[in-house]
Amino acid sequence: MRQSQLFTKTRKEAPADEVSKNAQLLIRAGFIHKEMAGVYSYLPLGLRVFNNIQQVIREEMNAVGGQEMLMTTLQEKDAWEKSGRWSDNVVDVWFKTKLKNDTELGLANTHEEPIAEIMKKHVHSYKDLPFSAYQFQTKFRNETRAKSGIMRAREFVMKDLYSFHTSVADLDLFYNTVAGAYSSIFNRVGLGDNTYMTFASGGAFSKYSHEFQTLCDAGEDIIYVHEDRKIAINKEVYTDEVLADLGIKKEELVEKKAIEVGNIFKLGTRFSEPLELSYADEAGNAQPVVMGSYGIGPGRVMGTIVELLSDDKGIVWPKEVAPFAVHLVRLGDSPDTVSSADALYKKLQAQKTDVLYDDRDLRAGEKFADSDLIGIPIRLVISDKTVAEDKVEVKMRGEGESSLISIDKVFELL
Amino acid sequence: MRQSQLFTKTRKEAPADEVSKNAQLLIRAGFIHKEMAGVYSYLPLGLRVFNNIQQVIREEMNAVGGQEMLMTTLQEKDAWEKSGRWSDNVVDVWFKTKLKNDTELGLANTHEEPIAEIMKKHVHSYKDLPFSAYQFQTKFRNETRAKSGIMRAREFVMKDLYSFHTSVADLDLFYNTVAGAYSSIFNRVGLGDNTYMTFASGGAFSKYSHEFQTLCDAGEDIIYVHEDRKIAINKEVYTDEVLADLGIKKEELVEKKAIEVGNIFKLGTRFSEPLELSYADEAGNAQPVVMGSYGIGPGRVMGTIVELLSDDKGIVWPKEVAPFAVHLVRLGDSPDTVSSADALYKKLQAQKTDVLYDDRDLRAGEKFADSDLIGIPIRLVISDKTVAEDKVEVKMRGEGESSLISIDKVFELL
Repeated sequence: MRQSQLFTKTRKEAPADEVSKNAQLLIRAGFIHKEMAGVYSYLPLGLRVFNNIQQVIREEMNAVGGQEMLMTTLQEKDAWEKSGRWSDNVVDVWFKTKLKNDTELGLANTHEEPIAEIMKKHVHSYKDLPFSAYQFQTKFRNETRAKSGIMRAREFVMKDLYSFHTSVADLDLFYNTVAGAYSSIFNRVGLGDNTYMTFASGGAFSKYSHEFQTLCDAGEDIIYVHEDRKIAINKEVYTDEVLADLGIKKEELVEKKAIEVGNIFKLGTRFSEPLELSYADEAGNAQPVVMGSYGIGPGRVMGTIVELLSDDKGIVWPKEVAPFAVHLVRLGDSPDTVSSADALYKKLQAQKTDVLYDDRDLRAGEKFADSDLIGIPIRLVISDKTVAEDKVEVKMRGEGESSLISIDKVFELL
Repeated sequence: MRQSQLFTKTRKEAPADEVSKNAQLLIRAGFIHKEMAGVYSYLPLGLRVFNNIQQVIREEMNAVGGQEMLMTTLQEKDAWEKSGRWSDNVVDVWFKTKLKNDTELGLANTHEEPIAEIMKKHVHSYKDLPFSAYQFQTKFRNETRAKSGIMRAREFVMKDLYSFHTSVADLDLFYNTVAGAYSSIFNRVGLGDNTYMTFASGGAFSKYSHEFQTLCDAGEDIIYVHEDRKIAINKEVYTDEVLADLGIKKEELVEKKAIEVGNIFKLGTRFSEPLELSYADEAGNAQPVVMGSYGIGPGRVMGTIVELLSDDKGIVWPKEVAPFAVHLVRLGDSPDTVSSADALYKKLQAQKTDVLYDDRDLRAGEKFADSDLIGIPIRLVISDKTVAEDKVEVKMRGEGESSLISIDKVFELL
């Protein structure tokens, strides 16, 4: 895409009403727009990153056999009353609204209840199990405060996977498979080195759930990290009993701030019993379905990447989530330079490389500042100087040094 | 995908609480699930169709230069008060909710106001214009009645494109370009022959807007069709003056029921003036931005396809939107037949053909009934009989006759 066509503009100053680094940088670079605290629109560059993260998650969910679907925001109270989660006293983040006939509706903050209702129409026998289904759908949470940019939003997309089993043993197997898929996801989006599978509180059906926590000073959680074993313990379950369970000594752990970027949870029959989601076993007896749930917010992942990987000049996107693979920057407007840059742009496009082409008539300093702020991994510069040498200047966003290479080498690099 | 893995089940009977054909068939075939009147979840088969329609629209919007973005559902009242559309007396389909501090919020039923607010941060000069931006985003409309299945929903995704110009003349040019893109979209999704660009009421800035109306007995609109000129007039503007404008005589028109599957509208400065979205012209004077808006609901398109193209056995999906390209049906479970069907399944997958493989142990009658109901364009049957002849039985969903062809011919057919 030609940058002269991109409707968003960068800003030099951070917006005065944002305290989080991710919101400041993403707004300055033109990736998002703040509607109100905790509610952000995704502009073209931001949506590209968001979609890349979503696609990584989708591929890993498909790989474990997840079937993609899409549930609704509007919710009637019946199922949520059965599970005991309709009351604002129990779940304090509900947004509620009303139909014309005064029927009260809720805006879904999670989807265990609706998916259990759906599956009552499709699960009859043990032969229908196991399987899993997931969606990317907006969740609404009426947070009292929302100061962490896109890391804790009032309206945000979540990937939620739900699994359905005949037994806890079968759930346990799948749970471990999903844990592996989650590790793959965080590796692929560039957070792997800093992300720890973390023991957290479970529910009636398992002693622990697991969170995926990324070490970051902007995090709201405190975790105790065992670096050798690449696991951690959430402060909420940091007890002698848990340490004994895991065979860990206090002195092996380091206290860190972290961001919860994903979680996996054994629900057991917590929802299938009150909602009467059952299957007929081999003897024909009705049994409650055993469930698991597994969440990741692509927007929170995106915010975490910005918090963790940006520098004083702007964002440093990992390759797999970057809005474009290449930022082609043209300096000067002499005919040779323009035609040389245009030709490289067309050649990159012909090779299906995602390229942002800065064809604007601006000073070099402004262009480089924008380029650093936007954070595309590979920057190619074409100027009168490089054209004279029949070369291209290449610089990786995270690195200090640039070098001159031939046009052919550009395509080897990609 | 193996059909034995697909979690959805078909149903023989239409749900008692649905009167529309699209909802009846889509629920029976396992494409959607009804949450409440006018609120439907999309199950895996339904989401595949929905995504295919969305992708056709996306490609055509990108082709006219539209930049994809994603706005929010939650809306503060300020911008809507300025445009005069906050009051429930003016817009009677609002769903409203509240933040914890009692601030009233609306759930977006359209996005002219928020996009104008966003563009105030990015449009400064005439040099920034023209451009266009679009999204696929859920709209919420508090309809009193909702009996038309996914054709008129309370919660539904809409593709809304907005364009921004310095002049009405420039808007007019782009408007005609989008009209052409809309024709391409309806042709590609299989509705072209039955869809008419229809003159409808305009606003303060243009005498007419245009709707794309698909002829269908389930439609809620009345239009007057000029078959030779492939245009129509909506009943709401069916006057002698309009007929004179268009040089059409009453006797050339036929009255028809139709479904509005898209609309395009010249907004002029209807929103940019009250919201103060302006640009500096060449002389440096502030001028209001001239806007257009262009909508299509992929869910309504999907519902219209079902209303129009289904038969007494089920749905007949056009090729470009079908959930799968091929339905491979295995009859019998003799080792030769199973290995032959498995081999064809793998070969189709290797060639990147989207194939649903009915590997279930059911009677032929049940399998064919399911296949007709689900409506995939090409059905391939492998049975003991076809294996003995080293052939495959092929049948097109919309046609009566099947024929035996060799395996090689299958790949020529695709």
